[in-house]
Amino acid sequence: MADFKEVLKSKTNEVNSIIEQFAFKEEGYQKRVFEAMNYSFIAPGKRLRPMIVLETYRLFGGNDIKTVAPFMAAIEMIHTYSLIHDDLPAMDNDDYRRGRLTNHKVFDEATAILAGDGLLNAAFETMSNTMVECGDNDTLKKMVKANAVLALKAGSFGMIGGQTVDLMMEHKKDVDEDTLLFIHKCKTSALLEASLMMGAILAGATKENVDALEEAGRYIGLAFQIQDDILDVCGDSAVLGKPVGSDEKNEKVTYVSLKGLETAKSEQEMYTKKAMNIIMNASGKEESFLLDLAKNLMTREK
Amino acid sequence: MADFKEVLKSKTNEVNSIIEQFAFKEEGYQKRVFEAMNYSFIAPGKRLRPMIVLETYRLFGGNDIKTVAPFMAAIEMIHTYSLIHDDLPAMDNDDYRRGRLTNHKVFDEATAILAGDGLLNAAFETMSNTMVECGDNDTLKKMVKANAVLALKAGSFGMIGGQTVDLMMEHKKDVDEDTLLFIHKCKTSALLEASLMMGAILAGATKENVDALEEAGRYIGLAFQIQDDILDVCGDSAVLGKPVGSDEKNEKVTYVSLKGLETAKSEQEMYTKKAMNIIMNASGKEESFLLDLAKNLMTREK
Repeated sequence: MADFKEVLKSKTNEVNSIIEQFAFKEEGYQKRVFEAMNYSFIAPGKRLRPMIVLETYRLFGGNDIKTVAPFMAAIEMIHTYSLIHDDLPAMDNDDYRRGRLTNHKVFDEATAILAGDGLLNAAFETMSNTMVECGDNDTLKKMVKANAVLALKAGSFGMIGGQTVDLMMEHKKDVDEDTLLFIHKCKTSALLEASLMMGAILAGATKENVDALEEAGRYIGLAFQIQDDILDVCGDSAVLGKPVGSDEKNEKVTYVSLKGLETAKSEQEMYTKKAMNIIMNASGKEESFLLDLAKNLMTREK
Repeated sequence: MADFKEVLKSKTNEVNSIIEQFAFKEEGYQKRVFEAMNYSFIAPGKRLRPMIVLETYRLFGGNDIKTVAPFMAAIEMIHTYSLIHDDLPAMDNDDYRRGRLTNHKVFDEATAILAGDGLLNAAFETMSNTMVECGDNDTLKKMVKANAVLALKAGSFGMIGGQTVDLMMEHKKDVDEDTLLFIHKCKTSALLEASLMMGAILAGATKENVDALEEAGRYIGLAFQIQDDILDVCGDSAVLGKPVGSDEKNEKVTYVSLKGLETAKSEQEMYTKKAMNIIMNASGKEESFLLDLAKNLMTREK
């Protein structure tokens, strides 16, 4: 366990150093929007999605950081923009995220909307730049596929769809399990599915393996979301960097409120095991950092 | 002149019928976001950007509607999302656009933010789908370039950058000509540049011609913006579908307030002539609908 924390720290540092190369130059008439984009993009975070892209890429034999780096940056830009827009007064109206003021509190609402738009657009700009420069037809086709996966999973059939339904369900007490699963699959799983799939596609994995990893991503997302719900009940607000009990206060239906803490915990374990089995089978490797990561997400404290 | 209006009407109908094929199915748990996306995307409009993509494509010898259609839809989705986000209370706070209630007035702010995000994302989703399905390496490379042009022109170095500076300049009376030109080049010209460039790239035009058309797009955008400013002073609110005199009321520095009506008119004419000359030289054709369109934008009443 101590070992995993050490490895995770060094992997996070590696991902951070890659991500930071894609920070925006804060210059020009429109400097303000670049400052707002960087404020959230370069903020401390788990970097879970780009880390999974990189580790899946490696697990399936990829060894060219330059090929995978723009896709790592792109998915982190999309994750970041979704946080900025979710925190807006018209959405979740949050003043703090991870102990720091949210984007619209530091800048203003209009700038936060534009910074979110800017990051979403920049994700595709980053991928399009590397595709234009790619001189090899085979690599280009992999990049085009990875780009399409991210576009699909981030959009109205993925993350944006999930956020739409999440907002519609606020203060409703009769949310059923199917609706809750839809929200979690879209809002949380979709980008994790994309992370695994993009890494595998860029490394040249078979279609069968990419499809299997999509399923693994779905399970990792569900287990991740259940842990979020558990931490909101049993977590330590100092470690989390946000108050606990907010779901109950907001009368939000969660996995825990719907099925009870014990069932939630056992389903979380089941999802994690399923994901790990798929990753083992697809990669043909019984040990990998990606497996350790999936396992440890279940016991995370923040 | 009567002839041009007839042709324009039939071209608009053609573009509308292409665009409508990319409307969103209003179904699923997230139906609400699709309804909001369609409300603005399928709203009546000039369809100027997709029309220019199509007409430039044809002017440079393109003849496969299936190749160009997703790019026409993509640029219209991006133009539409920018209108939805610009109209938000935190931005321009507009209740009406072209005589119809704005998106956030019909739905709500949160849904309008998500509908905008959804359309921006859907633009890249639409292009990525056609790139994934493309079986021909040569066509794929053209598509990848057109995709990159739109990503650049729509982003923080283009349209979003322009909107950022436009908001920063609100209620400021000391806006200089360079700053105003930056705003217009980014906010208005960037997507028109993209329209011409994408059409030409997809048709296989030379790099020299694509570069020249970028310049033509810049001039068309400037002429277009000056006409907007002129109409806000001399236009008919019934024809425009919005009140006139709003720039003066909002103490907004415009081309007309900065340089006077006569100078604005003569510069608009100069920009239009420059654009038309470039299009004539690049295409080698002295007559084309694209030329008529550029010329007639100068005398448009709405």
